Amino acid sequence: MDIQYDVVIVGSGPAGLTAAIYASRANLKTVIFEADTPGGKLTKTYEIENYPGIVKIAGVDLAMQMMEHSTSFGAEMEYEGIDAIVPHEGYFEVKTSSGNIITTKTVIVASGTRERLLDLPHANEFTGRGISYCAVCDGAFYKNKDVVVIGGGNSALEESLYLTQLVNKVSIVIRRDVFRAEPKVVEKVRNNPKISIIVKSLPDSLIIEDNRVKGMVIMNVETGEKTEIPCEGIFPYIGADPSTGFLQDLGVLNKAGYMVVDDSMETCVKGLYGAGDVVAKDLRQVVTATNDGAIAANSAARYING
Amino acid sequence: MDIQYDVVIVGSGPAGLTAAIYASRANLKTVIFEADTPGGKLTKTYEIENYPGIVKIAGVDLAMQMMEHSTSFGAEMEYEGIDAIVPHEGYFEVKTSSGNIITTKTVIVASGTRERLLDLPHANEFTGRGISYCAVCDGAFYKNKDVVVIGGGNSALEESLYLTQLVNKVSIVIRRDVFRAEPKVVEKVRNNPKISIIVKSLPDSLIIEDNRVKGMVIMNVETGEKTEIPCEGIFPYIGADPSTGFLQDLGVLNKAGYMVVDDSMETCVKGLYGAGDVVAKDLRQVVTATNDGAIAANSAARYING
Repeated sequence: MDIQYDVVIVGSGPAGLTAAIYASRANLKTVIFEADTPGGKLTKTYEIENYPGIVKIAGVDLAMQMMEHSTSFGAEMEYEGIDAIVPHEGYFEVKTSSGNIITTKTVIVASGTRERLLDLPHANEFTGRGISYCAVCDGAFYKNKDVVVIGGGNSALEESLYLTQLVNKVSIVIRRDVFRAEPKVVEKVRNNPKISIIVKSLPDSLIIEDNRVKGMVIMNVETGEKTEIPCEGIFPYIGADPSTGFLQDLGVLNKAGYMVVDDSMETCVKGLYGAGDVVAKDLRQVVTATNDGAIAANSAARYING
Repeated sequence: MDIQYDVVIVGSGPAGLTAAIYASRANLKTVIFEADTPGGKLTKTYEIENYPGIVKIAGVDLAMQMMEHSTSFGAEMEYEGIDAIVPHEGYFEVKTSSGNIITTKTVIVASGTRERLLDLPHANEFTGRGISYCAVCDGAFYKNKDVVVIGGGNSALEESLYLTQLVNKVSIVIRRDVFRAEPKVVEKVRNNPKISIIVKSLPDSLIIEDNRVKGMVIMNVETGEKTEIPCEGIFPYIGADPSTGFLQDLGVLNKAGYMVVDDSMETCVKGLYGAGDVVAKDLRQVVTATNDGAIAANSAARYING
């Protein structure tokens, strides 16, 4: 039978776009599928200061540059979601959201994660400029300022500790009076003089002045009392979910839904690779995503060439 | 005692420079040591087409941009080699080539590899424009042209197979009449119609016309007969050696001298990390180097913060 593509890439964040560069430069017939805005989480980041070689760039601009780059060696771009991937002997069927079926020798899934978003009025509007879902990416923008972290899990606390190296003060807001995080991390947080912990509280509303975030109102879950916390940055760590619903039947996900891959970015299904934030790993950055995309495409090329 | 640095980085290729960006953005007191030209192998690559977001850039220009970026958050740069790293309880002594001793909480080694170079007149001058040590990096520049690969090991043959996807013809020149590479790879090479194999031969000289590589003269090792091979690209794969002499006593190297690290880029010595080409791994690219540098610096930050 006639297989339509060498490589189908699901998602157009830095991982997917890099995979497209590497696959098309290896002369593989390549198509990228994107259900949403091309560029992935880049498009939600106001400024990026840690992509080596580019001292400062707007997230959307880097997204645009990567997208143009990714299609400059012949990779195609399709604006459609993927509903299912069906492995067959030596090839895959990929079902798109419009009902098309595409055949391909390999699939690279770089569909990323979806942060659970802060569900407050105006929160969307200030994401990337006052509200950030990534302390390692954006912490340096809040040097010597006061910030709020929402959440009591490991990532909320680890990111809070990270932020104390940069900011003036971190207020951690948690719903209960105990943390979900590991005791060792909790102890470090409790011993850090830059961190104050506000228990039994939930975000209530944002305080906006002059079109900038100036604070947050929180509400005590027992008394209903409302308190204002002045701050210039808000970091919600209320969880993120990998976008892997369409992979659920393939046995390639861990319990949290992230893709499990080996050093070559291959899953336990031959010819199916994962790359970027969708993969189970510790550090999720533009540079770690591009790394994964390059490795996945290189592995796909070696797989296709025997 | 007063430890001078949080992080000492050895080497200023993409891995070291990225580690500097991430370490200094985490407010760690950071210094980079470079014995040679800043930028590492970037400076030996004429053009780079596969650094996502930058469609085409001279290797030296990307090196320069990364270097400026790496010192823009406070990391220092010192032009000196490192002769030894001595681990102590909770800190390291780093001995520089001028005899200075620096103390630091962590060390990130990103000292790269040295390719064994083609030892012919003018070879140095045409490295990056006619002579390349990286088919994945530069293969696309030789689309539909004739190239020569020198060497009979796995990487020579694998890179030859990679090149057949792009170029018109690959001539592999080997010294003996058998390959060192694995039989499976050799079989693939023998069955590939784009590859011809020239046995019992050594490179003799370059053919240069109009300041460009136009071919190579090879010599039969038994008869001494010389033959001209017209080609526009020459890919020597006669080996590379990691620059890890100064680490030999620490138990962090594999047999070939590459650093063995875990997923956090840490060696078996706590606080000592490896990043980039110097690490034992499959794919050595700018994007895989920046990945390693970011992970190593992030791990160092977490280590220092308890």
